[in-house]
Amino acid sequence: MRTYELKKSPGVPLYEALYRCLRQDIQSGELPPGSKLPSKRALAEHLKVSKITVEAAYGQLLSEGFITAREKVGYFVEAQTYPQVQSKLPELPQAEPPAQVLDLTANGSVRFPFSVWSKLQREVMLDLGEKLLQPMENQGCGALRRAIAEHLGAFRGMTVNPQNIIIGAGTDFLYNLLLQLLGQERIYAVEEPGYQKIRKIYGAGGVCCVDAPMDGQGVLPQGLGNASVLHISPSHHFPTGLVTPVRRRLELLQWAQEADGFIIEDDYDSEFRFHSRPLPALYALDRCGRVIYMNSFSKSLTPAIRISYMILPDGLMEIYREKLSFYSGTVASFEQYTLARFLSQGYFEKHINRMRKFYKARRDKVVSALEACPWHNRLTILEQDAGLHFLLQVQTPLSDEELVELWQKQGILVQPLRSFYHGQVPDSAQGMLVLNYSALDESQLWRLNTLPKE
Amino acid sequence: MRTYELKKSPGVPLYEALYRCLRQDIQSGELPPGSKLPSKRALAEHLKVSKITVEAAYGQLLSEGFITAREKVGYFVEAQTYPQVQSKLPELPQAEPPAQVLDLTANGSVRFPFSVWSKLQREVMLDLGEKLLQPMENQGCGALRRAIAEHLGAFRGMTVNPQNIIIGAGTDFLYNLLLQLLGQERIYAVEEPGYQKIRKIYGAGGVCCVDAPMDGQGVLPQGLGNASVLHISPSHHFPTGLVTPVRRRLELLQWAQEADGFIIEDDYDSEFRFHSRPLPALYALDRCGRVIYMNSFSKSLTPAIRISYMILPDGLMEIYREKLSFYSGTVASFEQYTLARFLSQGYFEKHINRMRKFYKARRDKVVSALEACPWHNRLTILEQDAGLHFLLQVQTPLSDEELVELWQKQGILVQPLRSFYHGQVPDSAQGMLVLNYSALDESQLWRLNTLPKE
Repeated sequence: MRTYELKKSPGVPLYEALYRCLRQDIQSGELPPGSKLPSKRALAEHLKVSKITVEAAYGQLLSEGFITAREKVGYFVEAQTYPQVQSKLPELPQAEPPAQVLDLTANGSVRFPFSVWSKLQREVMLDLGEKLLQPMENQGCGALRRAIAEHLGAFRGMTVNPQNIIIGAGTDFLYNLLLQLLGQERIYAVEEPGYQKIRKIYGAGGVCCVDAPMDGQGVLPQGLGNASVLHISPSHHFPTGLVTPVRRRLELLQWAQEADGFIIEDDYDSEFRFHSRPLPALYALDRCGRVIYMNSFSKSLTPAIRISYMILPDGLMEIYREKLSFYSGTVASFEQYTLARFLSQGYFEKHINRMRKFYKARRDKVVSALEACPWHNRLTILEQDAGLHFLLQVQTPLSDEELVELWQKQGILVQPLRSFYHGQVPDSAQGMLVLNYSALDESQLWRLNTLPKE
Repeated sequence: MRTYELKKSPGVPLYEALYRCLRQDIQSGELPPGSKLPSKRALAEHLKVSKITVEAAYGQLLSEGFITAREKVGYFVEAQTYPQVQSKLPELPQAEPPAQVLDLTANGSVRFPFSVWSKLQREVMLDLGEKLLQPMENQGCGALRRAIAEHLGAFRGMTVNPQNIIIGAGTDFLYNLLLQLLGQERIYAVEEPGYQKIRKIYGAGGVCCVDAPMDGQGVLPQGLGNASVLHISPSHHFPTGLVTPVRRRLELLQWAQEADGFIIEDDYDSEFRFHSRPLPALYALDRCGRVIYMNSFSKSLTPAIRISYMILPDGLMEIYREKLSFYSGTVASFEQYTLARFLSQGYFEKHINRMRKFYKARRDKVVSALEACPWHNRLTILEQDAGLHFLLQVQTPLSDEELVELWQKQGILVQPLRSFYHGQVPDSAQGMLVLNYSALDESQLWRLNTLPKE
């Protein structure tokens, strides 16, 4: 009769230890199919455990079909071939510590108001308790939607119905929701150049995605072909920083109306204009229910909380309720109520003002570092009073690849404008670098001084 | 010259107040297109504000294209017709307080360990700080994936590679991710009867979704036609509570292999078996990379934190990294690290054990209430030692609709089994009710005594 070491380990009852040993032997073939197991009493005496323990283990094996019982005869291993069970748990590779570089390509956030956030979070749990555990409106909790509507009213001059706001765990998720709402048979146009991730998302969603050609004022309505959905960031185009003036905005609204189409307005960093207020949102100019407004707290607060939102016009809102309201919400209720208080108690506005100063100061440091570096007389900064990134024009005979490589040798990471093009790259992009300073390490700015003179 | 009441209001600089007044007048037509604005000095004196204030306001209107400047002549309203701006912010309707009923249909969670959770959350913020703000692996943080792998190893006897785990904000989101991973051209089979939401999700994702016929052992492999993806809950089928034995599981794996298909194993409530351990997961029996394991903390902890996960076989994991790893994660890093500690410090196991006792006790209360009620001799309970819901067979001449309505009159909400069928409902479903006791109010159980004798 087989003997097992039945170690008592916390959380694992004895019967289960025995069950595991037996199952292991059955799966490994040590106990071949058809073989008879010892009687419960015999095994119990043999292993010095109670009969109940053996009964429980046999019971489990029975219920899982590993063994069968024959009346008055005993227990037999089922005639099945069982796949082998692997043994050890593989480990995750440990992440390398990041190298010391001046990274002008990275996104990230800093200065998160941890203490306020954590205070509000505790308050939310104390005040709401069990209410937080109840199923929530899939659009997100009313408190947060109201707070967002009020914020947009005060900060963005927008009149928003909280009932038209949909909260989602990041914009990627919301884009996918829009694909299901607007339909996959439509043709989607995205800015060229632009934020290439948008293109990937639409690609993964299986829709046809075309380039939306741009001039100095933004997207050209007449260049949209038979697209019927246009995805743009008119307040501050990424990566060029271009701002689309009101006249062009009205032309685009006109286009949407005539094409029976929709415009997805990505307002991702409107909070970070340094001097004047951002232009009025397309959504605010739209009177035909053609604009979907989208924004996120990733840049303005932190990507760590994964809260984005979109605002649908009434017509689409009806379709959403009809077609997609069965989805569960995607943002934790704790976070939603905490953010609602963060907004309505004025902490968000304070935070934005602080960050605007912070980023302005950082931008100035980067600019002066550029002006002081050996290449200063070959550099031109192109920006439109808006934050977190700008274009740097470099006069150089080098190709963009050589340029990026040369800077990288000095520990300076930059991305060429050409990498944001999907199709043909115009000559004007030659020597253009996109400088994103939102997540750089200021102590590394000295590296600009190490750029080799020609 | 027009006069404006420039109220000083907090957060709104004077120039902005003036800018808003002017824009309002331009949009309303009070200042008609082409009309000349007063000179900066004149307006400043007129309104008793500084010239800088007027300059800033004009500057904003210029940058937005509402006015144009003519050298040495002055400022003119742009020849554009502007849509009117709405005024008031609509209010959200207030939610009704829920009526006092015995709701045997609702899902929900109770007994969330708020104090532990909030303690861990504070610790996470203190210990990790800025690290929480950095962009995170889109699969979810390593700490949480390791903790989940260890939990599944100990509790479910599964050998899981943390690198194959993908964390997502709810299973709905993960299903959509799977559609993009496995492809929309495949045919998806879902259990009949089954959890109808799955069908809706696949429908919204635009894939062809067919019924997977079942017998007393679970889904019948030979009934799957040309489907190549099968979505099942073999450990505890919803709503029948059926448990699929090992032999059938192996047959289903065989099918997946031959059909070059995949099985999505939804293990949604395996934590709540009251007596024996749950059967080994299909994922653990699979040696051909055909099974995708899916689970969530919605039932076991609370839907409020919106954390689910899936485990991909190596083959699919490669495709995921190649095709879909550009997506950002969907769960807040705060929540992820907190849950990681909740798991690895043993709180989750404690919680599960507590909840298993809690739900067992509640089940017993419901059963005794049924046994004591006027209908007791017409009721049969069908369950398989697994939690949160069971089937109740009612001997009655009434149709299911009449039955549900009759109970509803007594303030008892139940769902008939037939409502979980997509196609033809078998006669055997007649008089079958699905009783979900996870979210009922025990103080309402007395209502069962009010059922009218015939």
